[in-house]
Amino acid sequence: MSAMNAFYAQSGGVTAVINASACGVIETARKHRNKIANVYAGRNGIIGALTEDMIDTGRESARTIRALRHTPGGAFGSARYKLRSIEDNLAEYERLIEVFRAHDIGYFFYNGGNDSMDTAHKVSLISKRMGFPVTCLGIPKTVDNDLPITDNCPGFGSVAKYVAVSTREAALDVLSMAKTSTKVFVLEVMGRHAGWIAAAGGLAGSEPEDAPHIILFPEVPFNKRAFLKRVRECVRNYDYCVIVVSEGASYANGKFLAEAGTRDAFGHAQLGGVAPVVANMVRESLGYKYHYAVADYLQRSARHIASKVDVEQAYAVGRAAVQFALQGKTAVMPVIKRTSDSPYRWKIESAPLSRIANKEKMLPKRYITKDGFGITAAARRYLEPLIRGEDYPPYVNGLPQYVKLRNVAVAPKLKTKFVV
Amino acid sequence: MSAMNAFYAQSGGVTAVINASACGVIETARKHRNKIANVYAGRNGIIGALTEDMIDTGRESARTIRALRHTPGGAFGSARYKLRSIEDNLAEYERLIEVFRAHDIGYFFYNGGNDSMDTAHKVSLISKRMGFPVTCLGIPKTVDNDLPITDNCPGFGSVAKYVAVSTREAALDVLSMAKTSTKVFVLEVMGRHAGWIAAAGGLAGSEPEDAPHIILFPEVPFNKRAFLKRVRECVRNYDYCVIVVSEGASYANGKFLAEAGTRDAFGHAQLGGVAPVVANMVRESLGYKYHYAVADYLQRSARHIASKVDVEQAYAVGRAAVQFALQGKTAVMPVIKRTSDSPYRWKIESAPLSRIANKEKMLPKRYITKDGFGITAAARRYLEPLIRGEDYPPYVNGLPQYVKLRNVAVAPKLKTKFVV
Repeated sequence: MSAMNAFYAQSGGVTAVINASACGVIETARKHRNKIANVYAGRNGIIGALTEDMIDTGRESARTIRALRHTPGGAFGSARYKLRSIEDNLAEYERLIEVFRAHDIGYFFYNGGNDSMDTAHKVSLISKRMGFPVTCLGIPKTVDNDLPITDNCPGFGSVAKYVAVSTREAALDVLSMAKTSTKVFVLEVMGRHAGWIAAAGGLAGSEPEDAPHIILFPEVPFNKRAFLKRVRECVRNYDYCVIVVSEGASYANGKFLAEAGTRDAFGHAQLGGVAPVVANMVRESLGYKYHYAVADYLQRSARHIASKVDVEQAYAVGRAAVQFALQGKTAVMPVIKRTSDSPYRWKIESAPLSRIANKEKMLPKRYITKDGFGITAAARRYLEPLIRGEDYPPYVNGLPQYVKLRNVAVAPKLKTKFVV
Repeated sequence: MSAMNAFYAQSGGVTAVINASACGVIETARKHRNKIANVYAGRNGIIGALTEDMIDTGRESARTIRALRHTPGGAFGSARYKLRSIEDNLAEYERLIEVFRAHDIGYFFYNGGNDSMDTAHKVSLISKRMGFPVTCLGIPKTVDNDLPITDNCPGFGSVAKYVAVSTREAALDVLSMAKTSTKVFVLEVMGRHAGWIAAAGGLAGSEPEDAPHIILFPEVPFNKRAFLKRVRECVRNYDYCVIVVSEGASYANGKFLAEAGTRDAFGHAQLGGVAPVVANMVRESLGYKYHYAVADYLQRSARHIASKVDVEQAYAVGRAAVQFALQGKTAVMPVIKRTSDSPYRWKIESAPLSRIANKEKMLPKRYITKDGFGITAAARRYLEPLIRGEDYPPYVNGLPQYVKLRNVAVAPKLKTKFVV
């Protein structure tokens, strides 16, 4: 078989290390030009394939591709775009295969979360059915850490580190001021459905007096009375109280805490997230002065404080995807298998996309303390290795030097337009 | 004169590097035991002196004191506590001198902002009047960079670096997703009265298409129409728009933007800050999807991304304060004098507290672009050197190792209690 091209696309919310996976894919492909002629990347993810707007990564120097390893965001553009079921939207799948066929694309690397694994799986099936079998590989990426089978998911370790470090730092600030000023600090973190990121905040401290004193998980129905009681206890015993709250924290009836807030003159739901709601609850009931921070995108783009383990794993799953493809594997995703907690050891295996697609891995109950406000020793054993090591980007004049690609388009070959 | 003790106190909001100044004071004092027997620190700032609750820093090892250099927050506790005028509250000043006299304290080092410089100045005057002259030195500290005479203020450079780095990183995230998701990102930063911190966000980019595309300064009256027009232009031209907004951004009538928000059922002003107000304005008028982050305490405690220049200067002003005191100077503050922009060079001089107390240094008009949304080349020349260099703390298992002092109390000598 003569060499075919590969198509690589980023999907969904980006992370501090998704480009490290892209780097792993492209660098590994470049070592096997006899099988993979070139890597095309989708401009704005899968949309780039559908609209035949692909980026020629062959036009980027080895040095530029290497710099992807330390550059956050999605270098080719990502997209929140889910292909519907084959029954509902066969035309979209057919278009994809048509573009792949026109550009001799025999390999499809899809870097994303559950939805993307579903898409990659379907493309694998339909390409065969259409007589142009494409080797389809998923590459795991999500800050939410909610992919099944893989022990953890690239992207999570760096958010986890950011949240743990930030919690530890802000706590020192609050404690210094607690005598005459702020006593309660709330940090809002991502994770609408699963509390992995909130749990990582727990790594900031290890003793009862250490922050965070309270974690509010989406998995634990919010109990206002128990919460306020704990806040009061913390302020009494430790002079201050630091709370890490997941954006997905909700009441027993499933209603998000963030929805419980104020409405503006137009009746729109309140503008803030969950942090101001929780902080205000404390002020109204206990009268303590508060501050809150909303980390939002800062947490998932903070490449400057990325976890070294995370960067290495992100690169490794990109590299492994290419290696698996070259071994003839298809419809699989590289997964991280932990072989030892201490010392932490891991290796890459492969798992069928069908077992990963559309499944969510929730935070296990045994990772949450009985009172619902903290993490257990088992959670620490799991989480700690994932934030280990620093992998600083290069700096010039005080700022990290992130690479900007040329992103030259591949000349279109089809005469048809496709509107997404 | 036999050796006297020194009293050191932290005042006001803490920073990522105020402990580096404490380190400079204590390490330098330890080299001159013939003149400074011991350094006592105020537990919770000046309150510790008034209540005779002082910390014996002599009980901490050299290694622990060294670790203060890389530890954020205020290691002895700080306080938002302003001594009133001598006329209004002579008792408080008298108490201070009484405590100093009881503990042989001949040196007073006060590490804070404008208010604290005023206090240090008054203590200098009244101690003379009371026949127990104390050598009083101010040590500059404020993230707001609003102290006069000194070219810049320790604490600011690290916040500036944090804001510039975070803006650059989040912008890459937003740009990746702009095709199908978030187009507008708002980062709220500190600086209620002066736009120094917001201006630092401008360092994240240098070309027109680079983020941040808009900075909202407290110095520039908010013009909703011009603002929205610019947001639309940015999204049209660059696909996205990143906004850095100062918490102090306000309308021409002086009303804060943050006050323009919603009210809860009790009539309390809206819970969020200015970021959600601005973001919601964009959504209502232009329909763009937005995200926002509120950096709050994270920005001023982020020692993990401190500016090396800032750390060095924070240490240097602490050291210089002791050196000046030993030279017999009193009622002065070490100031940073810039002798060259490029290469950046600075030295320490002294300035009288009377010239610093209660004065604010505002962001000069020539640092803001004509349209009011950006920073000028002159601003860059001033700001850039201040964020230079990285000064990473040590890490163990993925987390920065910040020191916790023993903070052993000095035995009280007075029989009187003092209630603050």
